[in-house]
Amino acid sequence: MPKDRLEAFSDGVFAIAITLLVLELDVPHPAHGSLAHALAEQWPAYAAYVVSFLTIGIIWINHHAVMANLVAVDRTVLLLNLALLGWVSLIPWPTQLTAEYMRTGGADERTAALVYAGVMAAMGVTFGALWRYATNGRRLVVDSLTDAAIQRSSIRFRIGGPVYVAAMLVALVSAPASLAIIGGLAIYYLLPAGGAIAHPAER
Amino acid sequence: MPKDRLEAFSDGVFAIAITLLVLELDVPHPAHGSLAHALAEQWPAYAAYVVSFLTIGIIWINHHAVMANLVAVDRTVLLLNLALLGWVSLIPWPTQLTAEYMRTGGADERTAALVYAGVMAAMGVTFGALWRYATNGRRLVVDSLTDAAIQRSSIRFRIGGPVYVAAMLVALVSAPASLAIIGGLAIYYLLPAGGAIAHPAER
Amino acid sequence: MPKDRLEAFSDGVFAIAITLLVLELDVPHPAHGSLAHALAEQWPAYAAYVVSFLTIGIIWINHHAVMANLVAVDRTVLLLNLALLGWVSLIPWPTQLTAEYMRTGGADERTAALVYAGVMAAMGVTFGALWRYATNGRRLVVDSLTDAAIQRSSIRFRIGGPVYVAAMLVALVSAPASLAIIGGLAIYYLLPAGGAIAHPAER
Amino acid sequence: MPKDRLEAFSDGVFAIAITLLVLELDVPHPAHGSLAHALAEQWPAYAAYVVSFLTIGIIWINHHAVMANLVAVDRTVLLLNLALLGWVSLIPWPTQLTAEYMRTGGADERTAALVYAGVMAAMGVTFGALWRYATNGRRLVVDSLTDAAIQRSSIRFRIGGPVYVAAMLVALVSAPASLAIIGGLAIYYLLPAGGAIAHPAER
Repeated sequence: MPKDRLEAFSDGVFAIAITLLVLELDVPHPAHGSLAHALAEQWPAYAAYVVSFLTIGIIWINHHAVMANLVAVDRTVLLLNLALLGWVSLIPWPTQLTAEYMRTGGADERTAALVYAGVMAAMGVTFGALWRYATNGRRLVVDSLTDAAIQRSSIRFRIGGPVYVAAMLVALVSAPASLAIIGGLAIYYLLPAGGAIAHPAER
Repeated sequence: MPKDRLEAFSDGVFAIAITLLVLELDVPHPAHGSLAHALAEQWPAYAAYVVSFLTIGIIWINHHAVMANLVAVDRTVLLLNLALLGWVSLIPWPTQLTAEYMRTGGADERTAALVYAGVMAAMGVTFGALWRYATNGRRLVVDSLTDAAIQRSSIRFRIGGPVYVAAMLVALVSAPASLAIIGGLAIYYLLPAGGAIAHPAER
Repeated sequence: MPKDRLEAFSDGVFAIAITLLVLELDVPHPAHGSLAHALAEQWPAYAAYVVSFLTIGIIWINHHAVMANLVAVDRTVLLLNLALLGWVSLIPWPTQLTAEYMRTGGADERTAALVYAGVMAAMGVTFGALWRYATNGRRLVVDSLTDAAIQRSSIRFRIGGPVYVAAMLVALVSAPASLAIIGGLAIYYLLPAGGAIAHPAER
Repeated sequence: MPKDRLEAFSDGVFAIAITLLVLELDVPHPAHGSLAHALAEQWPAYAAYVVSFLTIGIIWINHHAVMANLVAVDRTVLLLNLALLGWVSLIPWPTQLTAEYMRTGGADERTAALVYAGVMAAMGVTFGALWRYATNGRRLVVDSLTDAAIQRSSIRFRIGGPVYVAAMLVALVSAPASLAIIGGLAIYYLLPAGGAIAHPAER
């Protein structure tokens, strides 16, 4: 069953990207002051870790929900999926960028937040394109998936792109606010959605 | 069988987190003195490596024991599991913190030990919550799991939280003693437990 | 079914190598000038990331296409596959080499490009050898694979070696041109090929 | 089939450890002299990479050969396997130690080689113990495995321990010779062995 191998490879990339996030957390060696103070000072790194962790976790859950509702995949899905994995595996880098520049103030902080939101936006748009392609005219979906469920899921999945773009605009003004929007979106996706497709592990 | 994918993803995170621990081991370049001496000096790094390795190994074994006894998972299990993976994938960071600050003396050493025990406590409490939620009123357990086995396993799994909290308190006094408690708990879990649920690989 | 375990292990290595590429992306700390400028300056790192990502993605796709058409594997396939994985898991290193030396000018830039193309060439030759060994006299192929499909796939798979060798020669003159050739080859493999074997996920 | 999960987790650790080896390869920034010269100078890093890669690859192959011949695993196998994975996941660290100290001359070079051979010896002894435990009195082996095959495999698997110990002794005299012995042992295991158990992927 070939779809399985695509899922297994994608799961591998999701699991590795989510676990590599920890490498962005530094062990501080403050020249003066206590370690406790230095650890408290790097709270943006923890915030970025949590938001990136939740976001990758959510992509994993939504990815399974989509894959479980496809009868098969074709080369376009294969390539869109590869592009999605490319953005996901990139996430540790803007996470580190945000962790190091948040609260430094000035233009550099906003640049880091913009790159972070930009990578998330590209990821969200790619996910939306994958969903749109697979469901367009019921191209690849299983018979048991109703049109109503497709429509409700489309609203749910397509909301990611615009919200991430909004986070990019907010990044030009406030880096923490931009990060908060992206974290809020992840929490929204964590909540169950009536009528939309769900992770196959849910009853 | 959707439960399998949850296990596979979790296994991936466990396997990566346990293997990333090696990145905290430094190659010393002593300005004076021999390499052998410098390697011997960094024994706290080896101790932290062993304790973290055993702890993740044990979580992996216990996680399988739990999953093998569930008929299905729901969204709450999915989210509790994601939280558990978040703490597990974080472990390499406090491990490195402990490796670098153990035996430096003073408040910083105790801070590092406190963070280490704190991450372990958060992980243990999350695991306990997952178990409690799944077994409460036999919500998700298979028929073959007796109430007696649930009770014996509850005692076994719930002991983790309080012991980790105790390790946090001990960390305020002695970092090595705190690490020893956490290592001792891992060894306790390595021993077979009569009547409690076991890893599915055991006969 | 033993072939499955070989594929699962190979998938693991592909997934990890593709995700480790992100570690070559630096977080710049410019002494003067803006972060935005410093990020723009390191465009060779992004180019190398994209080319390496596409190349590993393509090897993964082609590897599955080959494995799906074998009835079994023998020790020679096992060893050729291990050699292939050795080259694939090495890719993050020449990627970082290229990222850091591209646009520095002079002989060092060309050395980096030569090493990059050389690793790709070794990988391509090993893949070609695996394919040639498995299909030679229809040694290990499934009955459903026609001789015509073998021939068309041979042309497609064997083109990699010479193109990578050409990229090595071009590297002696221009590093960016060498990288462009390797990226172009990855895009060529992304396109569907009439008559050649395809990834099992394709219908 | 619980044995499968043990194999999958072990495969994950093998695949990650073998891929993390690449992180020990540095990108040199020579103060004077060419990059080409600096790359040539770090040949011990390539030698250590190759030997460690082959060794982990061989453990993976032999591990599968053993697992395929067990009817089940018990808690002792589970723990011996965890110990084996602990040594395997440690390998990137002595590999880096060897890469950096080989050819520096003096006692430090021999210390690094001793640590490298010591980790390999511990790994080999653990593997031997796993095999001895599982086959002792045919405790866990499948019926189809003949006593003759067990005996021939025992000779093959048990040779690792003493050879690694010999490499430790040689390390006290010559680091390159010690590394060569370990590499030679990996090549010995790569060759097919008449009558001994084989990787399940082999016909």
